[in-house]
Amino acid sequence: MTKSATARQGTASRNYPKGERRRAQIIEAAFTAFGQVGYRNASMVQLAAACGVSRAGLLHHFPTKESLLEAVLEQRERQDDAHFFRAGAAGRDGLEYFASMVRLVAHNQANPVIVSLFAVLSSEATAADHPARPYFVARYERARGQMQAAIDDLAERGLLRPDVDPTGLAADLISLIDGLQVQWLLSPDTIDMPSHLRNMLRNVIRVEVP
Amino acid sequence: MTKSATARQGTASRNYPKGERRRAQIIEAAFTAFGQVGYRNASMVQLAAACGVSRAGLLHHFPTKESLLEAVLEQRERQDDAHFFRAGAAGRDGLEYFASMVRLVAHNQANPVIVSLFAVLSSEATAADHPARPYFVARYERARGQMQAAIDDLAERGLLRPDVDPTGLAADLISLIDGLQVQWLLSPDTIDMPSHLRNMLRNVIRVEVP
Repeated sequence: MTKSATARQGTASRNYPKGERRRAQIIEAAFTAFGQVGYRNASMVQLAAACGVSRAGLLHHFPTKESLLEAVLEQRERQDDAHFFRAGAAGRDGLEYFASMVRLVAHNQANPVIVSLFAVLSSEATAADHPARPYFVARYERARGQMQAAIDDLAERGLLRPDVDPTGLAADLISLIDGLQVQWLLSPDTIDMPSHLRNMLRNVIRVEVP
Repeated sequence: MTKSATARQGTASRNYPKGERRRAQIIEAAFTAFGQVGYRNASMVQLAAACGVSRAGLLHHFPTKESLLEAVLEQRERQDDAHFFRAGAAGRDGLEYFASMVRLVAHNQANPVIVSLFAVLSSEATAADHPARPYFVARYERARGQMQAAIDDLAERGLLRPDVDPTGLAADLISLIDGLQVQWLLSPDTIDMPSHLRNMLRNVIRVEVP
């Protein structure tokens, strides 16, 4: 390795982590801002100020507000996945799937910023012209598919309560989880999300979810 | 009655309906705007332009954006009540209560503007400093109380399925309805809200809701 290559590499490794840290810091600030005031209402100028960077510095990392939104949604997805699939629940075992779901809801309840972000963005994104609309349409389709596979597994194993119709049950349980987020954010002392989810699962599944 | 009193009365009755019509028109425009872009992001200047009034004209009817928000929330509540209590379902008869609820959800599904407004405002209002937060906290408390009374009536009459725990079931079913709104707004061809509600009610109530 030439001296100049070593120098370049040294510069790069000093700069790279700093740039990454800055990028992560901006995503974190956006995560909070989008959950507090929504995507449309969040201001790039205020976000830059909150991170102590210039507007140009912010635009260096995220040339558009849409690109920042994309990064925030990716990060949320990674966080969910990390927690959700920790136990390897990939929808093959229905009971294990719902056990992971209860854990995920408990994890989110300890992290209001995650819950706010999801509640605010998902409803804001229902507008026809919202840049996150395609993301949420696809996300819900995927989520319904995964959960329905878990429910079908339970149905095949005879673990659903008699008279429970598995058709469309995934959309119902996802709705329950989403709706609880809003009630919990408004009345955190009244609503305990994991307990409510467990109770509703008891109404449809014959055995206790681990 | 003096001639001048008659004249004043004449002027008043000519002006009153016009002022009322204008007021109703502004509320309707705000209803749509708040549901599309949220309360925070809606602009009084754009609202005035959409109604063909000057900013001063708008401020004559609604001196602050908060007062317009209040009028929009009141109107939504009146619409719900008109539909919901049409059949006199005041929570005394649990089956009639849920029949009215299914009718309300069907009515809302035919009126996307109502659904958007509720979905967007209720999640936006979870922010600590949002002017509609106290309204939504109180609205959910009231809604949970009314629905729980209907559930308790069903429980007393032995109409809940065995093993269904009525505790907290109101929060669950309200969550289901709220969450379905977001999925329906995103995928109107996939989700039919009244069918999903009926299916979930079948999982907890032994008889078919009329």
